[in-house]
Amino acid sequence: MHFSSKLLEQAVEEFGKLPGVGKKTALRLVLHLLKQSKEDVNRFSQAFTQLKEHIKYCQHCFNISDTSTCEICQSVKRDRATICVVEDTRDVMAIENTNQYQGVYHVLGGLISPMDGVGPSDLRIESLIDRVKQGEVKEVILALSATMEGDTTIFYLYRKLQEFDIEISTIARGIAFGGELEYVDEVTLGRSIMTRVPYERKVG
Amino acid sequence: MHFSSKLLEQAVEEFGKLPGVGKKTALRLVLHLLKQSKEDVNRFSQAFTQLKEHIKYCQHCFNISDTSTCEICQSVKRDRATICVVEDTRDVMAIENTNQYQGVYHVLGGLISPMDGVGPSDLRIESLIDRVKQGEVKEVILALSATMEGDTTIFYLYRKLQEFDIEISTIARGIAFGGELEYVDEVTLGRSIMTRVPYERKVG
Ligand SMILES: [Zn+2]
Ligand SMILES: [Zn+2]
Repeated sequence: MHFSSKLLEQAVEEFGKLPGVGKKTALRLVLHLLKQSKEDVNRFSQAFTQLKEHIKYCQHCFNISDTSTCEICQSVKRDRATICVVEDTRDVMAIENTNQYQGVYHVLGGLISPMDGVGPSDLRIESLIDRVKQGEVKEVILALSATMEGDTTIFYLYRKLQEFDIEISTIARGIAFGGELEYVDEVTLGRSIMTRVPYERKVG
Repeated sequence: MHFSSKLLEQAVEEFGKLPGVGKKTALRLVLHLLKQSKEDVNRFSQAFTQLKEHIKYCQHCFNISDTSTCEICQSVKRDRATICVVEDTRDVMAIENTNQYQGVYHVLGGLISPMDGVGPSDLRIESLIDRVKQGEVKEVILALSATMEGDTTIFYLYRKLQEFDIEISTIARGIAFGGELEYVDEVTLGRSIMTRVPYERKVG
C-alpha cells in the first residue's frame, strides 16, 4: 500500500496492529476519524490513554474496576462462598448480563496456552488458591471457553483445587466445542451456569 | 452492556462510534490495547491526534498529503492533461497500486447523495472546474464507484464539464453494479482504467 502521507500511514499502521483489523479496514477507520472534529478525535485518543493510565484491577477478583475493590466484590448481595473463574472481563460482563449468577468472580487474565507461551504463572492462579485457602469458599465454578486452552486450564485448576474441601464445577456444555464464551447468547449462557455440573475428568 | 469501569466504558464507546465496529468488537479491541505497554497505547493515541492536527490536502488535487502540493502533483513524470476524478484518498491509493495510470487526480471528498444530505457544493467540484478552465486539461476520467451515488455524481459532473473542449470518460465497468471501487482487485481496476470509455449517457 502506497500512502500519500507519512502521518496517514502511521495512523493506519497503529490501527492495523489491532487483532482482526486489516490494512483496508484500518484505512477506512482512519479516514472516518479524519472527517470528525478535532475535539472528537482528541476525545477518541484520550479515552485510551486515560484508560491505560488510570485502569485498576479489583484486588480480590482482578476484574477491571475504577476502584481498588470492584462493585461486585463490594456488594453485600453477592455470595462470597461461590467463585466463578473466568478468562477476562468480557466473560464477567457476559455472565452479569444473564442476571443468573449471584456469586463473585476470579478473573484469570488469560488461559494456559503452550502454543502462545502462556503458562500457569502468567495467570492469576496463585491468588485464586489464596482465596480458597481462606476457608470461606464452598464452590469454584470453572466458566472457561470450550476450547483446547479452556480445557487445559480447567484441568490444571482442578488438580490445584482438588486438595481443598470445596465443590469444583464447570458450566454445562450447552456450548458447541470450540465456542468462545463471550459470543454465547445470554439465555444459553445463563442456563449453562444454572445447570453446571461437578468436574469429573479423571486425573492422571 | 454493563461495565465494571467508567473508563473502560468510555473507551469502548469511542471505538464503537467507528463505522462497522460493534460494541463487542470495540470491547475486544480495547482489552487488547490494555494489554499493550503504556508507550504503545500513547503511540496509538498520538497517531490520530497528530494526523488530525497536521493533516494537509494537496492544493491542486486535494489528496491527503504532508506537503501543500502532493507527490503526484509534484512529479514531472505525471501527465497534467489527464485528470482522474475519484471519491477519496483510498481510490487514489487503489489506482496507484495498479501502476497503470500516469495522469493526475482530483479528489472530490465524497459523492453526491441526497439521502445523506451531500450536495455538489459539499464536494470539490468548483475547484475541478477551475482546473479544467485553465486550458491544459485534455481528458477527465470519472473513476467513481458503480453505485447510485457514483452514477449521480458522474451525471452531474458530465453536465458541468461538457461545455469544455475535453474528453470525458468513465472507467470500464468490469465492476459489478453496486461494487465499491476500493474493494476491486488491482488487475480488474487497472484494466478498467486502461479500457475506459467516453461517457455517453443522454442528458436531459
Ligand atoms: Zn472484585
Ligand atoms: Zn496533488
